[in-house]
Amino acid sequence: MIDPRKAIIDERLKEVANIIAVSSGKGGVGKSLIASTLALTLARKGYRAGLFDLDFTSPSTHLILGVKEDITPKEEKGIIPPSIHGLKYMSIIYYSGEYAAPLRGEDISNALIELLAITRWNGLDCLVIDMPPGISDATLDILRLIKRIKFLIVTTPSRLAYETVRKLLNLLRDLRVPVIGVIENMKMKNSDFIRKSVEKAGIAYLGEIPFDRQLEDAIGNVNRLLETGLGRKIMEITEKNSQLLVPR
Amino acid sequence: MIDPRKAIIDERLKEVANIIAVSSGKGGVGKSLIASTLALTLARKGYRAGLFDLDFTSPSTHLILGVKEDITPKEEKGIIPPSIHGLKYMSIIYYSGEYAAPLRGEDISNALIELLAITRWNGLDCLVIDMPPGISDATLDILRLIKRIKFLIVTTPSRLAYETVRKLLNLLRDLRVPVIGVIENMKMKNSDFIRKSVEKAGIAYLGEIPFDRQLEDAIGNVNRLLETGLGRKIMEITEKNSQLLVPR
Repeated sequence: MIDPRKAIIDERLKEVANIIAVSSGKGGVGKSLIASTLALTLARKGYRAGLFDLDFTSPSTHLILGVKEDITPKEEKGIIPPSIHGLKYMSIIYYSGEYAAPLRGEDISNALIELLAITRWNGLDCLVIDMPPGISDATLDILRLIKRIKFLIVTTPSRLAYETVRKLLNLLRDLRVPVIGVIENMKMKNSDFIRKSVEKAGIAYLGEIPFDRQLEDAIGNVNRLLETGLGRKIMEITEKNSQLLVPR
Repeated sequence: MIDPRKAIIDERLKEVANIIAVSSGKGGVGKSLIASTLALTLARKGYRAGLFDLDFTSPSTHLILGVKEDITPKEEKGIIPPSIHGLKYMSIIYYSGEYAAPLRGEDISNALIELLAITRWNGLDCLVIDMPPGISDATLDILRLIKRIKFLIVTTPSRLAYETVRKLLNLLRDLRVPVIGVIENMKMKNSDFIRKSVEKAGIAYLGEIPFDRQLEDAIGNVNRLLETGLGRKIMEITEKNSQLLVPR
């Protein structure tokens, strides 16, 4: 039986010009910070940008953006994402609430389809999706449900982190999903291991972001976040690769 | 229908005195490094220790321990884990190989049951399990399949990391799963946020491990690993809490 909601998803996203999935191999590499900062940066540069937090394992963009509890989506023939700091925002937390519902695979899949089917993004130049880390059921569901998705991958310099990125890149290649490039976050010493490995895999290396111990204090304060080393570096990467990120 | 393998799992683990699941909220907090170091430390202290890597999302203990490719489990009425650096070792990679099989929930569940049912640990004082991060299907399966499991939880000082730990602690409390305590890893500046939050939740705060940028170079070299700041701190925590970790 075909789930009628799947046809609705195409309809809901048809006015969204570009869809960027920010993903990682492992968790804890700064994926959510980079997804949030990228969406904010695109909004500041005048693009109509959205941020969609689909990280079921640890949704955190609401903490990063400092979303107040009284800001919630409006219901109107679906759900209209609220505007926050100049971008349209929707998160799985509006669905699951604060309790970490130990959802089984099928329920997660169902929640994802529901969220994608009910959210009315309307016209956007770019929708940034904060993905669940690595290769999971949810990752595969999103690949299946959003046809025009492109991946932006975050790693750290660690061999352990890159090991899982390598597997993710193999999967995306096999499934013919476009990869915009890889960002190396939390860089601490000179090493070209990641750049070389990425380039060898035929993928664009977009740049490195130095480890920034002040970042924790910028959580919840978007102006401060955009002024951190990470914020400035994302701005630089966005300017250098605007055609890659938001082709017109 | 009852899967006959579930009865076998109890049988396989009946000579294992203590089972410690090393878990985290988010990934990338050092869970695999701490699980590996804990198992190695217990082995060096004369305990019969085992390490079981069940982190489907990014198995990495084989890289941390520097497991040579020619060391593989032996088949003999099940699978006998090889001895590596004084501990019995088994990993999901022996099942899935190098390719990141995009296993769906049911297949993961099946692979877990299979691995638990075929592995012959025989007599052990302590089996350390490197868990998948956070609350996933695999986490719930393991809770269901291994009755006597206790949790040791790793977090970083980050509010984003603790947010997911809080949810995991709530789930474990609801399911009445014992929690040995929480280790705060990658500590960089003075802050008692984690210690206070953990103690407020009625859980033991086992200690903090300073951020160590030399750790990456110790991957694959266990002697060097045990001499890092993390190695020495895990030894200290093991000595202080031996009754908690390995009650006789």
